Amino acid sequence: MTLSNGNGHSNENVDPALLRRPNIALWVTKDHKIYQKQEAFPDCPPDSCVIHVKATGICGSEIHFWKHGRIGDCCVTHDIILGHESAGQVVAVGANVRNLSIGDRVSIEPGVACWECDMCIRGRYNLCPNVVFSGTPPSDGTMRRFVAHPARFLHRIPDEMSYALGALVEPLSVGYNAVLRAKIYLGMPVVIAGAGPIGLAAALSARAAGASPILITDLEESKLAQAAVFGFAGLAVSTEWDRKDTAARIRQAMGCAPQLVLECTGSPASINSACYALEDGGTLLQVGCGKPDVELPLMSMGFREINVITSFRYQQSWPVVIRLIQAGVFGDVGAMITHTLPLERAIDAFETCVDRSARAIKVQIVDE
Amino acid sequence: MTLSNGNGHSNENVDPALLRRPNIALWVTKDHKIYQKQEAFPDCPPDSCVIHVKATGICGSEIHFWKHGRIGDCCVTHDIILGHESAGQVVAVGANVRNLSIGDRVSIEPGVACWECDMCIRGRYNLCPNVVFSGTPPSDGTMRRFVAHPARFLHRIPDEMSYALGALVEPLSVGYNAVLRAKIYLGMPVVIAGAGPIGLAAALSARAAGASPILITDLEESKLAQAAVFGFAGLAVSTEWDRKDTAARIRQAMGCAPQLVLECTGSPASINSACYALEDGGTLLQVGCGKPDVELPLMSMGFREINVITSFRYQQSWPVVIRLIQAGVFGDVGAMITHTLPLERAIDAFETCVDRSARAIKVQIVDE
Amino acid sequence: MTLSNGNGHSNENVDPALLRRPNIALWVTKDHKIYQKQEAFPDCPPDSCVIHVKATGICGSEIHFWKHGRIGDCCVTHDIILGHESAGQVVAVGANVRNLSIGDRVSIEPGVACWECDMCIRGRYNLCPNVVFSGTPPSDGTMRRFVAHPARFLHRIPDEMSYALGALVEPLSVGYNAVLRAKIYLGMPVVIAGAGPIGLAAALSARAAGASPILITDLEESKLAQAAVFGFAGLAVSTEWDRKDTAARIRQAMGCAPQLVLECTGSPASINSACYALEDGGTLLQVGCGKPDVELPLMSMGFREINVITSFRYQQSWPVVIRLIQAGVFGDVGAMITHTLPLERAIDAFETCVDRSARAIKVQIVDE
Amino acid sequence: MTLSNGNGHSNENVDPALLRRPNIALWVTKDHKIYQKQEAFPDCPPDSCVIHVKATGICGSEIHFWKHGRIGDCCVTHDIILGHESAGQVVAVGANVRNLSIGDRVSIEPGVACWECDMCIRGRYNLCPNVVFSGTPPSDGTMRRFVAHPARFLHRIPDEMSYALGALVEPLSVGYNAVLRAKIYLGMPVVIAGAGPIGLAAALSARAAGASPILITDLEESKLAQAAVFGFAGLAVSTEWDRKDTAARIRQAMGCAPQLVLECTGSPASINSACYALEDGGTLLQVGCGKPDVELPLMSMGFREINVITSFRYQQSWPVVIRLIQAGVFGDVGAMITHTLPLERAIDAFETCVDRSARAIKVQIVDE
Repeated sequence: MTLSNGNGHSNENVDPALLRRPNIALWVTKDHKIYQKQEAFPDCPPDSCVIHVKATGICGSEIHFWKHGRIGDCCVTHDIILGHESAGQVVAVGANVRNLSIGDRVSIEPGVACWECDMCIRGRYNLCPNVVFSGTPPSDGTMRRFVAHPARFLHRIPDEMSYALGALVEPLSVGYNAVLRAKIYLGMPVVIAGAGPIGLAAALSARAAGASPILITDLEESKLAQAAVFGFAGLAVSTEWDRKDTAARIRQAMGCAPQLVLECTGSPASINSACYALEDGGTLLQVGCGKPDVELPLMSMGFREINVITSFRYQQSWPVVIRLIQAGVFGDVGAMITHTLPLERAIDAFETCVDRSARAIKVQIVDE
Repeated sequence: MTLSNGNGHSNENVDPALLRRPNIALWVTKDHKIYQKQEAFPDCPPDSCVIHVKATGICGSEIHFWKHGRIGDCCVTHDIILGHESAGQVVAVGANVRNLSIGDRVSIEPGVACWECDMCIRGRYNLCPNVVFSGTPPSDGTMRRFVAHPARFLHRIPDEMSYALGALVEPLSVGYNAVLRAKIYLGMPVVIAGAGPIGLAAALSARAAGASPILITDLEESKLAQAAVFGFAGLAVSTEWDRKDTAARIRQAMGCAPQLVLECTGSPASINSACYALEDGGTLLQVGCGKPDVELPLMSMGFREINVITSFRYQQSWPVVIRLIQAGVFGDVGAMITHTLPLERAIDAFETCVDRSARAIKVQIVDE
Repeated sequence: MTLSNGNGHSNENVDPALLRRPNIALWVTKDHKIYQKQEAFPDCPPDSCVIHVKATGICGSEIHFWKHGRIGDCCVTHDIILGHESAGQVVAVGANVRNLSIGDRVSIEPGVACWECDMCIRGRYNLCPNVVFSGTPPSDGTMRRFVAHPARFLHRIPDEMSYALGALVEPLSVGYNAVLRAKIYLGMPVVIAGAGPIGLAAALSARAAGASPILITDLEESKLAQAAVFGFAGLAVSTEWDRKDTAARIRQAMGCAPQLVLECTGSPASINSACYALEDGGTLLQVGCGKPDVELPLMSMGFREINVITSFRYQQSWPVVIRLIQAGVFGDVGAMITHTLPLERAIDAFETCVDRSARAIKVQIVDE
Repeated sequence: MTLSNGNGHSNENVDPALLRRPNIALWVTKDHKIYQKQEAFPDCPPDSCVIHVKATGICGSEIHFWKHGRIGDCCVTHDIILGHESAGQVVAVGANVRNLSIGDRVSIEPGVACWECDMCIRGRYNLCPNVVFSGTPPSDGTMRRFVAHPARFLHRIPDEMSYALGALVEPLSVGYNAVLRAKIYLGMPVVIAGAGPIGLAAALSARAAGASPILITDLEESKLAQAAVFGFAGLAVSTEWDRKDTAARIRQAMGCAPQLVLECTGSPASINSACYALEDGGTLLQVGCGKPDVELPLMSMGFREINVITSFRYQQSWPVVIRLIQAGVFGDVGAMITHTLPLERAIDAFETCVDRSARAIKVQIVDE
């Protein structure tokens, strides 16, 4: 069977049974709605593969696009398909692709860098200004049954690794990149601010990189209880404490002043407390993006040579994170997945994320 | 002749002619006055030397203590002697001192670290919490004819180096430490924000470290004209431009985006413009301390992996900065000294600093 | 009871029962003999404490001093007391000591740096040219019941930590320092060359710092079997393989090329194989010292930007290594101790080390 | 006029006058001969440009290929065209090239990396295993009138910059890359071993990066005299001195121990002396490749934490080196060019390089 397609490629080798399955996708609108709609089976450009997406995690940024329609200057201006934490199976292979075959099990690296610009050449392709990032406006994402993706950004996973774990490579890569940016050393005292999925990913990466002691802070006891399952000590912070008071309690709970804070909340109060909690010469690493503008205690930081550094997404992380998951270096990362729903119930999956009583860490949408 | 003193040391070897000269000192009060008063010839503790101070620069921080009575939490709570940019001649040597003799010409490192704490042991003694810093509350400084100072923090200068240059080691050390913290590389495009003495010292250090191109920004054309004498290109920025506009003009004036901004103003507007001017992955280095709290564009910084690092004073810089001045690596640093007044006219020297029509860069108080 | 002593200090607070116990010491001679002899109870200088040594490990270097009389230029020219891997209890406290009390349980950092020289000030006191190192010619060591040691180089251990573990801080510090020098990152593929105690310490440190995968190589299968108990994969290398062949087998056994080799054998064959096994841009770290002169494939290294770096002893490691042992970060380090003998049988302990049939990893001499 | 060519491209826009000029090339044979032969005007692949080569420097490696037929495993197995230090003018532009036009003046980066492999993605494309390097077996080089080269590795030079300087970008890039690898800091004491063209390029780069003091060593006084013209202090070393003696003399001549030696000779004696001359904790950087196997004092290095690192060719250097030459940061680099001969006399140019009485530093072959 041959499916001709617009750009002259063909899907002639695709399993006909697959082609009969509807390519359901999850869309978000600029007016804060999500819906599902069926797509055509995708074309397969010569340097890409078509993937049958088997597992996709929902990221906090997607909840944000849904509920707020934007992250900074990145706005939902038209309906787009969400999704960027995915693993699946190759079902069609582009004409130029040499390193993948039909049936291969892969994790999808969602940020397709240009491989041409200065940032790419410097080995910092996460800063590529030409990046096409799945599920981030204006690009469609992976929350559909079938998606075409450049082969260079598809990474084989071991036979023994589940697709669910393959889809965790993305959030773990955020933690991994942060840990590399922070140059964590063995025995570095580290605070993780925020016990959500990114905070947990950062904590798992920091522990694997030798950080010790580690303390996770959060406003919510329930999130700290979840972090405790992974073996992390926690401190519930209060919005009623001022920054110096919070800093003192963090130091007391750790038994020392941290040399590093991995800030995963973006909250100005948390960031300020962290600056005061740090030992002289210490570093605050803002993981991902925070609020647009945040007031920092710059004079105090200057007197103590405190640095604020930032970590954005990831680059070159997929092969190593896959290896590390497989080798068990992060511990039981699968325990991050608290809820699993089939593709047909993707909307319910999103609702689960925002239902506080569900106590979700990571919700995944799966397909057989 | 022997002068007994309180702690059992003696000044028996001091030239009697010197002892007859009054030990005039320059004091600041908590209510914003400066005055001169004569002191006793200082005791010489066993690990210290007494220095006949021959040249002392006036630092912007001293103007600040005079006019505002504080820098952050560091307050003038009682009358203190100012001064921390000094060079002079050894006139008495403590009993335990082996490396210095009467007549030696030295530059004074004003921050006396404890050499015992964790920060000292880590090689970051500028962060020593036990530091005694000349002329910073509550410690008296070097703006007097004779001062005792620990020998460990006295550094010999070459015979051919003037005391005036010896007193410039301090501000150049601020620039030097900043440049080391910033890990400047050959060909790094660097902006210096602020064309005052610290900005100039940073610029001279950055150029010596291979930064290129270099652009200095300032609100005042007259300061940029002074910087131009040292060969630096300048851009007069306006408070009427917003941060993105200023950033664009900086990039245009440089012909590229800077990888580093050495921020020497502490002004929130300058800091914010710098964050936007930087190339992705770039670094803002706050030299010294800025305002107590400053709002930063953290989300934009996070998306672009922009870091904010800080540099405080200096450590281990005296021997190398003395070598570099002597070797001419910084260029004609002596041209920074625009005004020289005798010790007896120290108050006039301070008035010169605040007289905008004087266009002072560095005012020095000297003594024969 | 008061014991006067030569330098004017006294042991008046020492438990009289202790003073009655003979201060047995283990000596080595320049003609390759070891013997035990009783010493006087040591004087306690004002900045030192007297320690009742409870556990002391035997280091390969001590076997070397015994059997060969030298390591490089460091020769046994007269009888000295060996020992530098010790923990014990404070039994006397010098007059100036503020941070320790009688009864405190401590691990002994054997390298007493001067805290005055350039290397000390730079935070690299392991390179202090004035160091006095326990049990290394010409200084006497800790293999005796009672030893005086500067309080600054005594580090409290937790109540729950055994003296045996306290004595392991020293070899683990060697591994720790190596791992810091190597800047190991999470997921770095690392080969450990040599499965002796230093190789194991390096492997435990590398794993704790996130190295993965890790492969240990050794000529002896029995040592690899011991390493396997700690969970490490091993490759038995053969002296019959040439360096390129060995390199290829290492890569094959790891499934990738290492980015780092922690070389703990000093063997030229091992070092050369490592240089070829490394991925382009990789690093060989020589832990401790190798042979006096070793031929390296410098042209091949140059073409591939391979670096050879070195790690010597340790600095600032005691507090962090004690914390890491206590937190279990290294795993079951106690399993390194294969043999424990009482102080009175110290000579038997040395014989055990050289008895290949004993398959000793770490032999400790203990005292109650 | 249109010239059809084998791969379907055409040279239809090439100036007919140019096409009439013979494309003379300089060849080397495996049996140590060089000769000139005329080539066809080159095809212009879609991603390449054809360059009229205006200036080409002769590199020591080319003398080596001529006289020895190999460098390490890289052998002249068939006749190849030499040349990799070139600048010229674009005379034809490939169909896909957007950033260059006919008439553009460019410097040629000779190492064409694949932009696909791990090393390229890491920002270390100098280690690309798939590199095609001009004039290095088995690839033909730039010593001809016309050569096609991928546009990505052509870098525009300013109108005011001569082609002669444009051809110096290559050797200066070797020095630049070395200086970046060495992480030179302002005031770092540096020895340059070897006063040939690479030594000079390294010295110019080191000075521009703030190294001070700098000492160049060489066996030949005449080369040191040439270095002195650039302002560098020199020490003539003797093969009769042993390594420790040479080290002591280096330290004496510098007035201190170097923290870095940029080793540009590859000579085992020089390398060994350097290891001993270095301050504890210092670094020897082998620039380019040395002898295949070199014996190093590894034990002494281990005791003093001396590192040996390597620097191979360059990556990402062209734009910055062009800027630095233009800004005068290196000083008068043109003075390196001691001899200039027309393309037709390329063989004489090679003979000049090996004629010791000519005292050539850099010999360039030029064409109008």
